[in-house]
Amino acid sequence: MSARAQIGVTGLAVMGRNLARNFARNGFTVAVHNRSYARTESLVAEHGDEGDFVPSESVADFVASLERPRKVVVMVKAGAPTDAVIDELVPLLEEGDIVLDAGNAHFPDTIRREKALAAKGLHFVGTGVSGGEEGALNGPSIMPGGTAESYESLGPILEKISAHVDGVPCCTHVGPDGAGHFVKMVHNGIEYADMQLIAEAYDLLRHGLGASASEIGDIFAEWNTGDLESFLVEITADVLRHQDAATGQAFVDIVLDQAEQKGTGRWTVQNGLDLGVPITGIAEATFARSLSGSVPQREAAAALPAHTAGWEVKDREAFVEDVRQALYASKVVAYSQGFDQIAAASAEYGWDVDRGAMARIWRGGCIIRARFLDRITEAYERDANLPLLIADEYFADAVSAGLASWRRIVAGAAQAGIPTPAFSSSLAYYDAVRAPRLPAALVQAQRDFFGAHTYRRTDRDGTFHTDWSGDRTEAEA
Amino acid sequence: MSARAQIGVTGLAVMGRNLARNFARNGFTVAVHNRSYARTESLVAEHGDEGDFVPSESVADFVASLERPRKVVVMVKAGAPTDAVIDELVPLLEEGDIVLDAGNAHFPDTIRREKALAAKGLHFVGTGVSGGEEGALNGPSIMPGGTAESYESLGPILEKISAHVDGVPCCTHVGPDGAGHFVKMVHNGIEYADMQLIAEAYDLLRHGLGASASEIGDIFAEWNTGDLESFLVEITADVLRHQDAATGQAFVDIVLDQAEQKGTGRWTVQNGLDLGVPITGIAEATFARSLSGSVPQREAAAALPAHTAGWEVKDREAFVEDVRQALYASKVVAYSQGFDQIAAASAEYGWDVDRGAMARIWRGGCIIRARFLDRITEAYERDANLPLLIADEYFADAVSAGLASWRRIVAGAAQAGIPTPAFSSSLAYYDAVRAPRLPAALVQAQRDFFGAHTYRRTDRDGTFHTDWSGDRTEAEA
Repeated sequence: MSARAQIGVTGLAVMGRNLARNFARNGFTVAVHNRSYARTESLVAEHGDEGDFVPSESVADFVASLERPRKVVVMVKAGAPTDAVIDELVPLLEEGDIVLDAGNAHFPDTIRREKALAAKGLHFVGTGVSGGEEGALNGPSIMPGGTAESYESLGPILEKISAHVDGVPCCTHVGPDGAGHFVKMVHNGIEYADMQLIAEAYDLLRHGLGASASEIGDIFAEWNTGDLESFLVEITADVLRHQDAATGQAFVDIVLDQAEQKGTGRWTVQNGLDLGVPITGIAEATFARSLSGSVPQREAAAALPAHTAGWEVKDREAFVEDVRQALYASKVVAYSQGFDQIAAASAEYGWDVDRGAMARIWRGGCIIRARFLDRITEAYERDANLPLLIADEYFADAVSAGLASWRRIVAGAAQAGIPTPAFSSSLAYYDAVRAPRLPAALVQAQRDFFGAHTYRRTDRDGTFHTDWSGDRTEAEA
Repeated sequence: MSARAQIGVTGLAVMGRNLARNFARNGFTVAVHNRSYARTESLVAEHGDEGDFVPSESVADFVASLERPRKVVVMVKAGAPTDAVIDELVPLLEEGDIVLDAGNAHFPDTIRREKALAAKGLHFVGTGVSGGEEGALNGPSIMPGGTAESYESLGPILEKISAHVDGVPCCTHVGPDGAGHFVKMVHNGIEYADMQLIAEAYDLLRHGLGASASEIGDIFAEWNTGDLESFLVEITADVLRHQDAATGQAFVDIVLDQAEQKGTGRWTVQNGLDLGVPITGIAEATFARSLSGSVPQREAAAALPAHTAGWEVKDREAFVEDVRQALYASKVVAYSQGFDQIAAASAEYGWDVDRGAMARIWRGGCIIRARFLDRITEAYERDANLPLLIADEYFADAVSAGLASWRRIVAGAAQAGIPTPAFSSSLAYYDAVRAPRLPAALVQAQRDFFGAHTYRRTDRDGTFHTDWSGDRTEAEA
């Protein structure tokens, strides 16, 4: 067995298979391996003509077929299966070899694995890959973590197979150890928020305006020509215009209204809580999915009264424009919160992530790809340390222009009984973060009252406690 | 050393010291121990006349001074210090002895510890204690987990020192292993929501109505005579009427508006995400505290425009009543979500928690003590398996009566730029959970489009996938 493959892929389910084909189509010699050899054989039989595949039946042969330093892409299920494959590979590898985990690992696992492999002289590159099956084959957005050294040899290969926008690859070195998987996690969290916001906009047009699904599909198609241009808005138009063949009804009306989730939204919010970053849009989106699947609760609540004030839409076009503005402003807030979380994590875990570069590599290949991301990159080019995306001049202006619409929509939805948890939460965030004074002062005073948790003052330094159960004098704590 | 103490307390910082005094005052002979003996001595010197204390300098003497089965209350910091004390105690204990952890442990730690001690024939009772220093001394709300057997001997002692309401102790056996600490965690999560809702009501009265802090204090005092009667509303009135001696200003105006947190709100939301229970009120409250402390973000956003429509209050009394109704309805939702989480955890971890009993033991001693809790107990007495508290007849009527007010307040706040994340989120939850149809159908359709995640149909069983990139036919998955 000559060591001639430039990269190897182990785990040839649909994602691994498509990644391997993508490498081969781009001119790389690809070693391929799967636990059951049948999958390896079928890949080569069906797609062998796309490029140069080196199939191996055993892990040892697979490793032996790779050029040094070896680059092994592991594409198996997150958790125990990933550990099992790594454990099998490691004894066969040599110093300087690179193991790339392209699965959906939780970033603390990636940090742990990187540490373990670094101790053996190996590079472990936890890599976020977004774009689903189609992206894996034709160009995904790729978010590799790990050492800068590993990226020197790996980067050119990954950049070549990634999506490209304006000739720029949707792949860059994110940062050390868990940074790649972390950024992919936040990408998915933002995706949850984006999808929920689109769903709320749809619901407003359906129940506020009374438009049909296909009419709303046309509205989304129109929106996709402007600031909202994005993959998710585009497919929303497609979905809403699609008719169910069996019933002739709008497809969206025959789909059960219980949205599922696979965990990355949950992880994102749990991490936001750990870091103390208010990512309320992602939280509301994640909980909205849980709520939709809370069947006994929904059944119990079905008879509860609405007592709505209704919504008399006088100007159809103005209403549609209000919803569009509310969607855009809420989306800006959701992204702002997500980028805030990346900044906080970067500081906490010592990653030095370039937020502008993250927006750049999300422009193509991935689910949240959008025109809008160019504006985010530009914002971080103006100020790499921008503390808050919505405070950037472009986004501040954009939100400002839509603010009156946003307020009308959130107020109208509350009166009309149309649930808009993510729209409302994003507006509340906007109004809170810009507020010169928050009622958090009262919360902190209550905490001092019942738990002697102390407070700080606005007019001088120090930490104070008031003797609430006594004479109510203040003492420095 | 004769084994004559009925219960022991180790860890004599203020909470442990007060619990020990509470036992002694109630006629129990209390063994007391602390890592540094000085604290033990000072307790006996200062409060020895309150009852029968048996001080020990060593852990061995402390254990030897206890009647069998020994009952040892550990009151030290959660985490490693708790493990260290347990490790020191265990070799000195005998089969059937009981270790009670009264600290703020995270319930997975309690599950782990219970398992380890059960293997040694010991009972480990993770116990939630709420009420702060004052409650520990005069009667807290006590939430013991662990075995039913341990509660037989421990229960009468704990019930005696707990708060009592209408002669009923605020203590009951919650359920196995981590159930006690879990319920305490949710209690704290609800406390976060309750405090945030009060803060939003205050903010609305301050900036919507333009009332002064002390006027709002009077309003809260008035509210405390009705449905909202509770410890938190009572102390809010006190805080708002309090004047800062140094400046002559309203006290609440000199407190820095950055609310702190110690982690139980965060744990509650993280668990809600794990269990898939939408506890949006607690999440918004937790994030509101994080936001208040996000200083660089708040500074960056300070110049952002408000573009508010303002709020012209024509009828002051009607406005105050609207805020009161909105507060009450939002509070009902926050409690409903918290009790939903207890039910889900009880099913998930096999605890069989009686939710009505939890409301009963929260009526006194703890921070969220309130008249309102009697209504919750009654709701679960009507139906022990009630799927949703707001669907109970009493609460459905209460929310229904306030619904128009609630909608006006949330809509008005959005227009006026007053952030009400918890009010808004609770209303959105109410409107979503009662909705016959949610736009989650669109979310699930999008998921099928970009990730082949499949969907279910409203009109027949099965799991389906549409060939979105092909001819858009549907196939059973």
